[in-house]
Amino acid sequence: MHDLVIKNGTIITCDSSDRVVENGFVAVSQGKITLIASADDIPVPNAATVKDACGGIILPGLINAHTHLPMTLFRGLADDLALADWLNSHIFPAEAAHINRQSVFDGALLACGEMLLNGITTCCDGYFLEDEVAKAVNLSGMRAVLGQGVIGFPAPGAPNPEKGVEIAGQFVSQWKNAGNPLIRPSIFCHSPYTCSANTIQEAKKKAQDLGVLFQIHASETRFERETSVSTHNKSPIAYLHDLGVLDSDTLVIHSIWVDKADVRLLAQSRTCVCICPGSHTKLASGIAPVKLLEDAGVCVALGTDGPASNNSADMFREMGLAARLGKILTHDPTQSPADKVIRMATVDAAKAVGIKDITGSLEVGRQADIIVVDTNAPHLTPCYNPKSLLVYSATGADVSLVLVAGRIVVQDKKLLTFDVKAAMASVAEIAERIARKNERENKQ
Amino acid sequence: MHDLVIKNGTIITCDSSDRVVENGFVAVSQGKITLIASADDIPVPNAATVKDACGGIILPGLINAHTHLPMTLFRGLADDLALADWLNSHIFPAEAAHINRQSVFDGALLACGEMLLNGITTCCDGYFLEDEVAKAVNLSGMRAVLGQGVIGFPAPGAPNPEKGVEIAGQFVSQWKNAGNPLIRPSIFCHSPYTCSANTIQEAKKKAQDLGVLFQIHASETRFERETSVSTHNKSPIAYLHDLGVLDSDTLVIHSIWVDKADVRLLAQSRTCVCICPGSHTKLASGIAPVKLLEDAGVCVALGTDGPASNNSADMFREMGLAARLGKILTHDPTQSPADKVIRMATVDAAKAVGIKDITGSLEVGRQADIIVVDTNAPHLTPCYNPKSLLVYSATGADVSLVLVAGRIVVQDKKLLTFDVKAAMASVAEIAERIARKNERENKQ
Repeated sequence: MHDLVIKNGTIITCDSSDRVVENGFVAVSQGKITLIASADDIPVPNAATVKDACGGIILPGLINAHTHLPMTLFRGLADDLALADWLNSHIFPAEAAHINRQSVFDGALLACGEMLLNGITTCCDGYFLEDEVAKAVNLSGMRAVLGQGVIGFPAPGAPNPEKGVEIAGQFVSQWKNAGNPLIRPSIFCHSPYTCSANTIQEAKKKAQDLGVLFQIHASETRFERETSVSTHNKSPIAYLHDLGVLDSDTLVIHSIWVDKADVRLLAQSRTCVCICPGSHTKLASGIAPVKLLEDAGVCVALGTDGPASNNSADMFREMGLAARLGKILTHDPTQSPADKVIRMATVDAAKAVGIKDITGSLEVGRQADIIVVDTNAPHLTPCYNPKSLLVYSATGADVSLVLVAGRIVVQDKKLLTFDVKAAMASVAEIAERIARKNERENKQ
Repeated sequence: MHDLVIKNGTIITCDSSDRVVENGFVAVSQGKITLIASADDIPVPNAATVKDACGGIILPGLINAHTHLPMTLFRGLADDLALADWLNSHIFPAEAAHINRQSVFDGALLACGEMLLNGITTCCDGYFLEDEVAKAVNLSGMRAVLGQGVIGFPAPGAPNPEKGVEIAGQFVSQWKNAGNPLIRPSIFCHSPYTCSANTIQEAKKKAQDLGVLFQIHASETRFERETSVSTHNKSPIAYLHDLGVLDSDTLVIHSIWVDKADVRLLAQSRTCVCICPGSHTKLASGIAPVKLLEDAGVCVALGTDGPASNNSADMFREMGLAARLGKILTHDPTQSPADKVIRMATVDAAKAVGIKDITGSLEVGRQADIIVVDTNAPHLTPCYNPKSLLVYSATGADVSLVLVAGRIVVQDKKLLTFDVKAAMASVAEIAERIARKNERENKQ
């Protein structure tokens, strides 16, 4: 007998043949998927727990390939501002004043609650004091790849930038040894413009030695690209390539301002890319050339970025944006179709963050990271095409059931793993301190 | 004593000074707003019904300035296709085969349910058999400006295009005389490329004679503009201007492909514009130049367009898109800030559809079209700026209470005015017939 069966749904598998199973069921045992079939072909098997998808859509848990979870503390703190103003006058000062072990934990925990309720079962994060993020993720029951930050100036928990790589290495070793099946440590090197060449190479070497994902922001803005060209006589991607850090264990985040030569370097090195359309548009950074990247064979994942620049961790919203921006950039409504952007948020994201053998698709033997979208709602009626419905009509609020490694973490749209109201109250309290401090300073 | 008070919320008034009232309450009597104040200044008055916003956001009911309600029947029928293919091979044949009085009513009723649940209290529609739309709107309890369609070829309910203006005039007269305070009839002339010059002028004259809004699509695609220039030696806007149909009682929908001369014509004639960013991006039509329009003084409203090209009637999603696209087009993250796009979905939309004296803002004497957003949710925590929260983080699913003319139509996220499950079932049944017919034809 199986541990659990989810029955009576349209299954979007995201497997290699992108199979859709009508009137389908998924059986789960010991945290893994043990059977996927249509009830039209095989009777629904017995299980200790049976969940009815009520005709909804069953799909792999969504993977948010780029986040800064603790920045949930700053959601909406400073919007509609120029990037430099936003970063230098608002975000960096707020981080300097308010980021500490407790606030990192509180911000990350609320982010996990938000993401799980939105059907995100895995995130790939990069921040500082990342061991506090790991504790929050662990408490929440979600899966994550967590990168300890490395940056060329003093940061929370790493006042001496020269120690950044060492601290990151310690974080990775600690969480590799922790034996937590849901948490994979990583190194998050902030960017080519905030880290020296030496730091980038050292951080990559440390990640390689420890066998973990190396994450880095690059080519986010036109200014960044132009500065790189004038400083190094190279684009940010060419610069990273020449530093020897591009390979299939490196994830380049943003990659908006890339030309064909950059894309060739990414493709040849089998480097994966994560785009964040919500953040890219809100900060007016640009639109990532997804067609150019995909035509060259680069694997493109989707992420929300941190809540200070998005301001939502809803991968449905992100999929809808990716589909729309892919069309607008190419003047072609057939680009970035629904099935492709769903893969960017599932199987391609799993590949990009280095976990495609365990999750990202519904296949026998994969981890049971599964979500159900309740389509029994006016805005999801009628349903001609479940993939279109997910990308163009659904939101995270339509997710009714969420499993991570076979464990039910959200049921009937309620989070089961921790007290999310208490997490909201903690963050609201920190935000009130931040707002009061800003008010005082503005008065001076 | 007031009929109803909504208390304990942050009020976004959208009045002329864009006032925000902390710890506010709104009192309502006989369908109108009678008092708005902060409980810090005035005690909350007694009322027959008291609603607690629980610290959420109280704002004017959203106005969807462009819809084709019955097309809810075709939501997701044909996505990720080129415009001509989408329209000629899918939408027009589906309309020819499946649009009739009953299906128009059923599709429109479900659309009303979706919109009310999303906090949309007014829509401006254009379709055929519009009296069926009016019956559905009336049953739903929402407010609407409803345009009977005029088009240069046979349409549902108007097989002879030469009778189109006459039929539209009859519709307007009928609903003007019906004395329904929530429904304003209008004439919706499809576009300069589907109607002759004569038809456009006759339709406008009819609208003028009857004193109602004249709606027309124009300058949606580059192809439309180029064809207009090669056919008439004029842009679509210049063409409409020279036909004498641009004035403050005309609403031009789309207006993407406009240049400075077009914008000057719109501004001088005080013609309002409605943009539909969801539809514009999904069909890869382009991004409307909102800054250019607003800098010239043109009033710009926001609409979702029909569910076949969006595929969602969520004005929160639309506001978020408008904010993002305004930034991307100008490469400037300070453009289309949250407060401006909220006005595009409330007070500016009310002006555009000709009802700014009765709704679109929370002011004493205005109709009590009021919604409450429940911010007590992980994805809406913390709240530094309620306007940012609405535009960048909220969705229609966060609307908990909706009043139209003082009547509670949605309470605790449940629709009170009609059986929305039955409406869903009716539309699902029609959709099944459409899908089966398509399947049969594809097999042949």
